[in-house]
Amino acid sequence: MDGQGGTLRIGFRNDYSEGAHPRVLQAIAHASAEQNAGYGTDRHSARAAALIGDAIAQPQAQVHLLVGGTQTNLIAIGAFLRPHQAVIAVEAGHIATHETGAIEATGHKVLTVAAPHDKLTPALIQPVLQLHGNEHMVQPRLVYLSNSTESGTIYTRAELEALAQFCHAHALLLYLDGARLGAALTAAGNDLDLPTIAALTDAFYIGGTKNGALLGEALVIVNPALQTDFRYLIKQRGALLAKGMVLGAQFAALFEDGLFFALAAHANAMAQRLRAGLQHAGAQLTSDSPTNQQFVAFSARQVEQLAERYDFERWETRLDGRLVIRLVTSWATTPEAVDRLCADVVAVLGSVA
Amino acid sequence: MDGQGGTLRIGFRNDYSEGAHPRVLQAIAHASAEQNAGYGTDRHSARAAALIGDAIAQPQAQVHLLVGGTQTNLIAIGAFLRPHQAVIAVEAGHIATHETGAIEATGHKVLTVAAPHDKLTPALIQPVLQLHGNEHMVQPRLVYLSNSTESGTIYTRAELEALAQFCHAHALLLYLDGARLGAALTAAGNDLDLPTIAALTDAFYIGGTKNGALLGEALVIVNPALQTDFRYLIKQRGALLAKGMVLGAQFAALFEDGLFFALAAHANAMAQRLRAGLQHAGAQLTSDSPTNQQFVAFSARQVEQLAERYDFERWETRLDGRLVIRLVTSWATTPEAVDRLCADVVAVLGSVA
Amino acid sequence: MDGQGGTLRIGFRNDYSEGAHPRVLQAIAHASAEQNAGYGTDRHSARAAALIGDAIAQPQAQVHLLVGGTQTNLIAIGAFLRPHQAVIAVEAGHIATHETGAIEATGHKVLTVAAPHDKLTPALIQPVLQLHGNEHMVQPRLVYLSNSTESGTIYTRAELEALAQFCHAHALLLYLDGARLGAALTAAGNDLDLPTIAALTDAFYIGGTKNGALLGEALVIVNPALQTDFRYLIKQRGALLAKGMVLGAQFAALFEDGLFFALAAHANAMAQRLRAGLQHAGAQLTSDSPTNQQFVAFSARQVEQLAERYDFERWETRLDGRLVIRLVTSWATTPEAVDRLCADVVAVLGSVA
Amino acid sequence: MDGQGGTLRIGFRNDYSEGAHPRVLQAIAHASAEQNAGYGTDRHSARAAALIGDAIAQPQAQVHLLVGGTQTNLIAIGAFLRPHQAVIAVEAGHIATHETGAIEATGHKVLTVAAPHDKLTPALIQPVLQLHGNEHMVQPRLVYLSNSTESGTIYTRAELEALAQFCHAHALLLYLDGARLGAALTAAGNDLDLPTIAALTDAFYIGGTKNGALLGEALVIVNPALQTDFRYLIKQRGALLAKGMVLGAQFAALFEDGLFFALAAHANAMAQRLRAGLQHAGAQLTSDSPTNQQFVAFSARQVEQLAERYDFERWETRLDGRLVIRLVTSWATTPEAVDRLCADVVAVLGSVA
Repeated sequence: MDGQGGTLRIGFRNDYSEGAHPRVLQAIAHASAEQNAGYGTDRHSARAAALIGDAIAQPQAQVHLLVGGTQTNLIAIGAFLRPHQAVIAVEAGHIATHETGAIEATGHKVLTVAAPHDKLTPALIQPVLQLHGNEHMVQPRLVYLSNSTESGTIYTRAELEALAQFCHAHALLLYLDGARLGAALTAAGNDLDLPTIAALTDAFYIGGTKNGALLGEALVIVNPALQTDFRYLIKQRGALLAKGMVLGAQFAALFEDGLFFALAAHANAMAQRLRAGLQHAGAQLTSDSPTNQQFVAFSARQVEQLAERYDFERWETRLDGRLVIRLVTSWATTPEAVDRLCADVVAVLGSVA
Repeated sequence: MDGQGGTLRIGFRNDYSEGAHPRVLQAIAHASAEQNAGYGTDRHSARAAALIGDAIAQPQAQVHLLVGGTQTNLIAIGAFLRPHQAVIAVEAGHIATHETGAIEATGHKVLTVAAPHDKLTPALIQPVLQLHGNEHMVQPRLVYLSNSTESGTIYTRAELEALAQFCHAHALLLYLDGARLGAALTAAGNDLDLPTIAALTDAFYIGGTKNGALLGEALVIVNPALQTDFRYLIKQRGALLAKGMVLGAQFAALFEDGLFFALAAHANAMAQRLRAGLQHAGAQLTSDSPTNQQFVAFSARQVEQLAERYDFERWETRLDGRLVIRLVTSWATTPEAVDRLCADVVAVLGSVA
Repeated sequence: MDGQGGTLRIGFRNDYSEGAHPRVLQAIAHASAEQNAGYGTDRHSARAAALIGDAIAQPQAQVHLLVGGTQTNLIAIGAFLRPHQAVIAVEAGHIATHETGAIEATGHKVLTVAAPHDKLTPALIQPVLQLHGNEHMVQPRLVYLSNSTESGTIYTRAELEALAQFCHAHALLLYLDGARLGAALTAAGNDLDLPTIAALTDAFYIGGTKNGALLGEALVIVNPALQTDFRYLIKQRGALLAKGMVLGAQFAALFEDGLFFALAAHANAMAQRLRAGLQHAGAQLTSDSPTNQQFVAFSARQVEQLAERYDFERWETRLDGRLVIRLVTSWATTPEAVDRLCADVVAVLGSVA
Repeated sequence: MDGQGGTLRIGFRNDYSEGAHPRVLQAIAHASAEQNAGYGTDRHSARAAALIGDAIAQPQAQVHLLVGGTQTNLIAIGAFLRPHQAVIAVEAGHIATHETGAIEATGHKVLTVAAPHDKLTPALIQPVLQLHGNEHMVQPRLVYLSNSTESGTIYTRAELEALAQFCHAHALLLYLDGARLGAALTAAGNDLDLPTIAALTDAFYIGGTKNGALLGEALVIVNPALQTDFRYLIKQRGALLAKGMVLGAQFAALFEDGLFFALAAHANAMAQRLRAGLQHAGAQLTSDSPTNQQFVAFSARQVEQLAERYDFERWETRLDGRLVIRLVTSWATTPEAVDRLCADVVAVLGSVA
């Protein structure tokens, strides 16, 4: 899914092509010049945890700063489950498709369900529970959501409440992958916020890598039963950073005055500008994404032409032969780049079938 | 082993209390301002790999940039072994003691041997092979060394050659943990260099975290049989950094003009200055370490007094009741801090039994 | 899927309700009265391996006698794959559904495809390979077949040849789960035999438990590259039986003069007698199974009535509300039991909607 | 450790060379002729569990019948521990030496301590706890004992009580490997019984394989917190026997009227007859074993002579060059075989230095 191209054209490939926001970089440089305690016991990590604790309004929650999304998912899920227990996810779920079997490598099966807009619902989970009723099958125990989802869609408050209620009633843990949580919470139509997510889930993570950090995800464990000895699990998976201040300083910078949300809002604004331009050009959008990932169908020749000047992901080939490409904006995307792409799409659609 | 103290006194606790060398930070900032390809396929990672390839003189070797030492050890060893195979290490080996069972969590047993100066020899390995001869026992397959070792000692060229020859003759892989390889290769008495290590081992890593990087270890896989599909293993363990340029830029900065060795040489020089001062003060050094870790025995009361002004690790309690503390210097340690500590040791030894 | 009922009615629940054929029991009793070498190195295990070696006409193949099907699958697949590699199976595949995530517990993902009649084809495998092309996804490496399948269907020689050719061309290992291989090879319409299966697969197992043994499966590893150190893997998974002669004596009895095939042929004959009776009664058969598992759709009330006198598996509920039950015959099923069931089906269909 | 010889001489190699006691075999044959429910839900398994429940006087305990010792250890320990937790065992502990890393393959480290007579004590465990105090190291959580031990010694009631009290005070689980529990409980000097063991441990198993069964170990889980979902773990490890009655019938036969203890007492009596004969002959016994394993030191030439007529294990080579052999008696050992061996030892000692 992730290209490994050489020369970079104007990039809409993903939201991790650019590095960190200058204030994030500055925070690292500042902390780097001090002596700090090791392994995440430094003052910056403590401050980041406190800021996030305030933002989620769950004082008893634990905050652990980790390096990447796959790492966070495998440590959390591997820590929360007993060996015979399984995860439920949508077919497109990142853990199911693009993490090289990281969850299975910790011993756990990922049970997938086909899901419109890549969003789970109680009605989609129910049959999985009915099917798995005895010791000859894995025991479903944790529900994995992404918000925003792999196709850029978002959960509403009502949807998340329904899932939380269902999970609670069926002894399922609810875990939310927030690699792009900033984009979700600043999207048009969003009615969720961090306190609500923290109140409704057992654990979730707040993605930094795709929202202005050099690297870093903040795992929040709300459910006290899941907190015990968690640092042992981090260390065992090779994820306890010696210079933990690198993560602490970044999340402190992101959360001390709303930079996290400002960066995500910018990425979304660029994506909506792009969306409007593409619609105006008559391009065919294939997902109702209010966030920073947009999906557009073109003919193969049109894609070829666009690829000469722009870098993006070829997402899938449809049955009608058309290609869907993914265009991603980030905290660093400029309006000029967006407008130029839109103009080029107009030209390409006009000249090539 | 690693303290989690609050206020920091003058730090001799470890070589990761300080952040990155300014030129390393600058390299990150520079790369951060560009668009870069993801997941280690960027130009900085390529340049770092090329520079390291030159430095080791093994053009066919693979270089993979990873985040930390435990992560590197578990990915490499987990990738190199079949499920029934085991590692041989000294009792003090980092993988045996201070990685929370990370190797066992990948399914492999660590067989340990008592070793003078924490250094393996063919004579120490031989009995392990003799004992493990059939399918009721694990099969020893990989020899794990650290250089410098956990007590600061180093391997000589002759010692490493003997081990390599023995391993080759007994179908054992030879793997070297170089968390502090810079310190080893710039120590007084060292006669090894990177090309020799690359020629004698199947794989090893060059530690950045403890030698001037924010984070990062460069794993070098010399043996082609161990290279296949290695990026899959990195991704599966959650270690494929989205913004891989963060690692690439740092190692490029460390290796483009010898900064890596200069920083290590400084740390060693500070350690030898400390060593000389301690000897002069009549303190009891417990390891003949030519590198940046020094071990000193004091009475419990003396340790208490020193701990008021200095931060260090309490390493072990000896049978005679005295405590051994570890003092570590880094690329950022100043002569003033060393001299002040030495003066205080003189005072403490003079006033407290 | 497997009921845990108390009182047993006339059993069509499975082919492991009855114990071992008397000649198999006798062989155990005979061997039990001797002194035998341990851990499968006894003369009975050697004789069983030799008899199976003759039957498959692959002198270089290894034969390992194991206790059960899930155990055999997890040891073999866990031994054959590197950590990032995955298995391809049909959705109904036993390893995918009814082994409590045993394969995932060894660290490997099972990729499933929807398959008519629960049979894999190259055309079904091809898209899985196309989808999995880089290190962000698992690497498909082994194709898992069952013969007979979970719904009682069988592979033809042409079908298996096509799969073998495809696997060979795409560096995929071909593994066949023969829990009910006896039934497959003695079914009407079968044109496969043991030498052909051994020639076309990398490994497969010959099921004893479901064909007249007390317990036991004979794993055959044909591909020499998969044979190295295999007994280590057996021991590590807790599957090296101290009194291995228990397995050896049974397989020797099954293979010394064709008992294995005679027992399977009997089970099939009883199933076809049942099938004919059910068709005559107007019952609705839902799988074209020529083997010892038959699947029949009834109304819920009809199933209730039959369940008063017979023990069977409720297999699935169809969208139209009707229940599919599974009826299984074994080496010990009598014509009288079959005829009585058929008569009762006539009565039930006549009296209850 | 376990030889794989061809021709068998008179066997003192182990206690699993002979098969099952005739009454055990008969029980299997009887159950084999019925229809039984699958997967351990049959009436024989229920009866065995009830008989064992009576024998241990812990009505809430769970009894699970498994196939072998390594299997039982790995399933139990793998089920009881979280990923970062470790086992404490003596250096000679079976899980530490002769199970091919089965515990590590479930992800857990085995911490070993040197122990006189292969017996753990609180004083030996205490330093392990002191050493392991933070998340950089594994967390000791389960204490593994064998009774009788690997050198044939046994625990007294006072010793086990001291261990249980210590474990309870330090949040450690106490698990007892009873592969040879029959021998321990019928040994001269033993003051333990099944109710006491059940009252003092969290879980233990009663070995059948080495005491008159064809195969089978009865795992008893006393601690309710460890019981949840245990059958899932059995199935996932490939250990849920389809024809579970094979195990049920055997344990019912062993426990319905004391056969289990009678067989063990016979093996011990034969061992003590052997011990007396060897002492009379002037042979050098190296362990004060009151159970069915005896260890004797001979010169290499003496061992060679004895090996012409007797089958036994060469246990270790001592520093003085003498070999220690292990002689094991079983439920099937005859006084004649013992007396003949003793006579031959007299002859060998008289003729060869």
